[in-house]
Amino acid sequence: MASKFISERNLKFLLHEVFDVASLTQYDYYKEYDGKMLDMVLKAAMELAEGLLWPICQEMDKNPPELVGDQIKVHSSVKKILEECGTGGWIGDDIPFEWGGQQLPQMITMGSRFIFYAANYSAAAYTGLTTGAARLILNFGKEDLKKTYLPKMLSGKWQGTMALTEPEAGSSLADITTMAEPTDHGYYKIKGQKIFISAGDHDGVENVVHLMLAKIQGAPAGVKGISLFVVPKKRMDEKGQLVFNDVVTSGVFHKLGYRGCPITQLSMGDSDTCRGYLVGEPHQGLLLMFQMMNEARIGVGAGAAAIASAAYYAALEYTKTRLQGRRLSTKDPALPQVPLIEHPDVKRMLLFQRSVTEGALSLLMQSAKYADLTIVLTGEEKEKNELLLDLLTPIAKSYPSEMGLLSISQGVQCLGGSGYCDDYPLEQYYRDARIHPIHEGTTGIQGLDLLGRKVIMKGGKAYKLYLEEVRKTICQAEEFKELESYVQKLKQSIEMLQQVTAYLMDVQKNETPEVFLADATLYLEFFGIISVAWQWLLQAMAVVKALRNNPAGAEANFYNGKFFAFRFFFEYELPKIQGLASRLMHSDGLTVEITPDLFSD
Amino acid sequence: MASKFISERNLKFLLHEVFDVASLTQYDYYKEYDGKMLDMVLKAAMELAEGLLWPICQEMDKNPPELVGDQIKVHSSVKKILEECGTGGWIGDDIPFEWGGQQLPQMITMGSRFIFYAANYSAAAYTGLTTGAARLILNFGKEDLKKTYLPKMLSGKWQGTMALTEPEAGSSLADITTMAEPTDHGYYKIKGQKIFISAGDHDGVENVVHLMLAKIQGAPAGVKGISLFVVPKKRMDEKGQLVFNDVVTSGVFHKLGYRGCPITQLSMGDSDTCRGYLVGEPHQGLLLMFQMMNEARIGVGAGAAAIASAAYYAALEYTKTRLQGRRLSTKDPALPQVPLIEHPDVKRMLLFQRSVTEGALSLLMQSAKYADLTIVLTGEEKEKNELLLDLLTPIAKSYPSEMGLLSISQGVQCLGGSGYCDDYPLEQYYRDARIHPIHEGTTGIQGLDLLGRKVIMKGGKAYKLYLEEVRKTICQAEEFKELESYVQKLKQSIEMLQQVTAYLMDVQKNETPEVFLADATLYLEFFGIISVAWQWLLQAMAVVKALRNNPAGAEANFYNGKFFAFRFFFEYELPKIQGLASRLMHSDGLTVEITPDLFSD
Repeated sequence: MASKFISERNLKFLLHEVFDVASLTQYDYYKEYDGKMLDMVLKAAMELAEGLLWPICQEMDKNPPELVGDQIKVHSSVKKILEECGTGGWIGDDIPFEWGGQQLPQMITMGSRFIFYAANYSAAAYTGLTTGAARLILNFGKEDLKKTYLPKMLSGKWQGTMALTEPEAGSSLADITTMAEPTDHGYYKIKGQKIFISAGDHDGVENVVHLMLAKIQGAPAGVKGISLFVVPKKRMDEKGQLVFNDVVTSGVFHKLGYRGCPITQLSMGDSDTCRGYLVGEPHQGLLLMFQMMNEARIGVGAGAAAIASAAYYAALEYTKTRLQGRRLSTKDPALPQVPLIEHPDVKRMLLFQRSVTEGALSLLMQSAKYADLTIVLTGEEKEKNELLLDLLTPIAKSYPSEMGLLSISQGVQCLGGSGYCDDYPLEQYYRDARIHPIHEGTTGIQGLDLLGRKVIMKGGKAYKLYLEEVRKTICQAEEFKELESYVQKLKQSIEMLQQVTAYLMDVQKNETPEVFLADATLYLEFFGIISVAWQWLLQAMAVVKALRNNPAGAEANFYNGKFFAFRFFFEYELPKIQGLASRLMHSDGLTVEITPDLFSD
Repeated sequence: MASKFISERNLKFLLHEVFDVASLTQYDYYKEYDGKMLDMVLKAAMELAEGLLWPICQEMDKNPPELVGDQIKVHSSVKKILEECGTGGWIGDDIPFEWGGQQLPQMITMGSRFIFYAANYSAAAYTGLTTGAARLILNFGKEDLKKTYLPKMLSGKWQGTMALTEPEAGSSLADITTMAEPTDHGYYKIKGQKIFISAGDHDGVENVVHLMLAKIQGAPAGVKGISLFVVPKKRMDEKGQLVFNDVVTSGVFHKLGYRGCPITQLSMGDSDTCRGYLVGEPHQGLLLMFQMMNEARIGVGAGAAAIASAAYYAALEYTKTRLQGRRLSTKDPALPQVPLIEHPDVKRMLLFQRSVTEGALSLLMQSAKYADLTIVLTGEEKEKNELLLDLLTPIAKSYPSEMGLLSISQGVQCLGGSGYCDDYPLEQYYRDARIHPIHEGTTGIQGLDLLGRKVIMKGGKAYKLYLEEVRKTICQAEEFKELESYVQKLKQSIEMLQQVTAYLMDVQKNETPEVFLADATLYLEFFGIISVAWQWLLQAMAVVKALRNNPAGAEANFYNGKFFAFRFFFEYELPKIQGLASRLMHSDGLTVEITPDLFSD
């Protein structure tokens, strides 16, 4: 096992030097904290991760969940992890004080989740799901729901889930068929099937609380007829006892990775006694669920960046110690072999990983900052941050997911044959991370969301705000002579983004939605690369400032290394937008035109 | 399980319509064959694949090899497969008649191996290794070695391997330490360790024959002191009995994929009784081994393209049957759901897979054709084809390996959550194929080979021949009005290749080898995309010709679909060279300059 999975130094750099997390404590909502306290939170997160999550990461992978009877058995540590996360306040870390939470800034919870995900993605997924489910109840549930569920969930005794997908309804939520029949007793009778439900059942908790989408009888067709329910595995009876609520675990899926956490098939109402409790108004379910979904999407991005971080440090450790070959200019076999990291091609692979991982994390922190500002600000300023967060969400989900995979694959490559074998953790990361472009909305769905919804909503308001944000960074960076050529490159990129977007807006006017959105996934990729370049320029300013103070030793190495990663991104990654732009500006409807029968021979 | 893993129609298209395999039968060496007979060979290969290999592909994955005592146990089918491949002539398919082989053209054996690899990569790897090892003995072994080993190997009773890698010598073969001590008895005493040896031991055969690199005592340091030996697990004693040859299987690696075939750790000479038999001259081992290595590299490319083909057909089948969502222009939920393949983004993912897979296979066939021509031609024409094959080898290895992975990943994506679960074969393909950028020389090594050796060898002769070949295709394609815009694009690409190459030749003159070769991997990627575009233009000419005959039904679908895949490659894949060129023309030594200590914080 490698000895490191994230850089604490880099987290502090982002939080303090780039995003000034302490500035949030000027607002009432976060006034109980100061910068030092926030650092202590992250220190505690590291301790938990190193003590509890990291040591069993491979063991959980090798002992995946099993369905025994109708109960899923998970690794025995899960119970302990959930208890400790509950006791330590991690499940309710960003829940308000009044409900027993820690009311921490989103930037800090982003940091702690990044740590947990990097240490052990599967283990951390349990708590992240509970937090999201709890917040849905908190924001939209009736008082009795809150009182019954929140304390148990936040303490880690009950598991929360998001139960959307069904056998015939994956990306197409309009087609769910789980039904909710009203009764006179304040609950609904639920009947249906769900699949792919993460942590949908396990023996590490007393109970599982599903935040479930279903249709009330007689509801309108499609997404406008979807309602949100709390559907517990066990419900509280009149005496306050937990009794079975007719939610049966009918299967567990055998997965490529992410094996420490079960994804389950559930059957509700087989005995006609499954009760569900409405959250919010009828038929508003999808809208409400999108709160949890958006949070989950950014969580997926964080998980992907985190696994990529762990892979990077594992590759780094290997390449620093493994001797292999000689420098290309001194191939005398009488000389000793050099560490792999002395080879430029290996350094290229490592810089690729670092620039992707730290760039992605910066983008996620940016999203978390917007989320924080929506909490503390009001009026137009609040709306502005909401729009920016909305726009960035598909990118913050997809860029880390897609590029994280490639980054991890380069980590595997750094180890050669050893990367392919389970003596090293890389092969597990490669498997674990493949879920991220799929769950919580595939990359294709994110592309449609970005181009088909976010860029054009409110007359392009979010998109314009985004351009302003990037231009603000460009203006600031123009003050730094060291950054001159990179400022120019980002300027050109932003111009390219505007050209491509304007071109696509024309296509939208003149062509069918199919043609307009045919390359939405490529637009997402294009937009993502530019966004991460923006984040790297933001980071570079902080680096240049720090280097002016002539740091020494490890500090100097950190900033100088960071500057190389920044340069690498601009020199190796940013040029990829050229090919993407040339494709995106050539809308020919090729993929619309081809008919299914032409795929066979 | 999907019902299809390759397109026979496409194989025939390449063999006959693009590369005119029958034209080889005009030469003496292949005169026993005609076009029809060659088709029958492929038909027989399909039958073997469908009957024997394909049905157990997943089963072999789920029951990986185990080391029991000092014997590796593999799936019980392996023995039967090797017997049938031996009896059927598949192991000696391209070995000369005089040694009991079938003396088939390389283009045909490329076709049959592609079929076998697609049906079950692990199973087919066993026979491919034996063929390569047998050919080394055939070409460079003494008469008694040939007589002892070839019949047993070609019949599938004995396994062949290539034993190069050692615990401290992976990519750096200069550092192998396995020693060969001369004796007066015509053999050498071998002592050392080998790791990652594919099929290095198993109970599906009576014996394993290692083609092994070792250093004769007192040999020069580095690669110039490497010799090649036959080192059998069991040797023939004076009475013609097989006796133990002191080759001990000391380990089996647990791998991400490719699990049907063991990769092993071997210990030779623990009891000082391991005998090795020199092949060729002393200290010429690496040169000789490169014959098998080059063959194996193209074999790896074929394996990668083949798994990508199987993944494509599995994804195609799923997307044609799985209903999900509605067209973007008709989202009325009252309408029935449409198959996934109706969505442009899904068609884009499928076209990506098809254009990569069929483009890669065409490149492999082109390499096989050059190999055939080196066999049948003489003098300058022979040398010309040798040079072209040499130049293409790193590309034919790496393009399918790297792009095959991305292609398979898009296959996983087409299935969404199901792609991540083992109810479908995609997750296995995703694991299996990850070995290809690693084994038989990593992608980084291939990049160094292409730019640091092949492009510059003999004053750039191979490179110039390559340009002539592409220009020849461009000239031919100019006759087809339908191809006009694509011809222009390939012309521009070739100009770009020349600019980038000329630029790098300048760097070579003025900078260190490290700086010159720092981005060799990107040059390989760049060169690969252009080469596959060339192959697509070759294919497109055959398509246009065929369409002029107004084919109907399935034939029309094949050619029209192929034309879409061709267009897709030029519209979506070829533009990627723009970003690569702009990076490659900006040699800044960034990855040379950064020192290892800057990677830590």
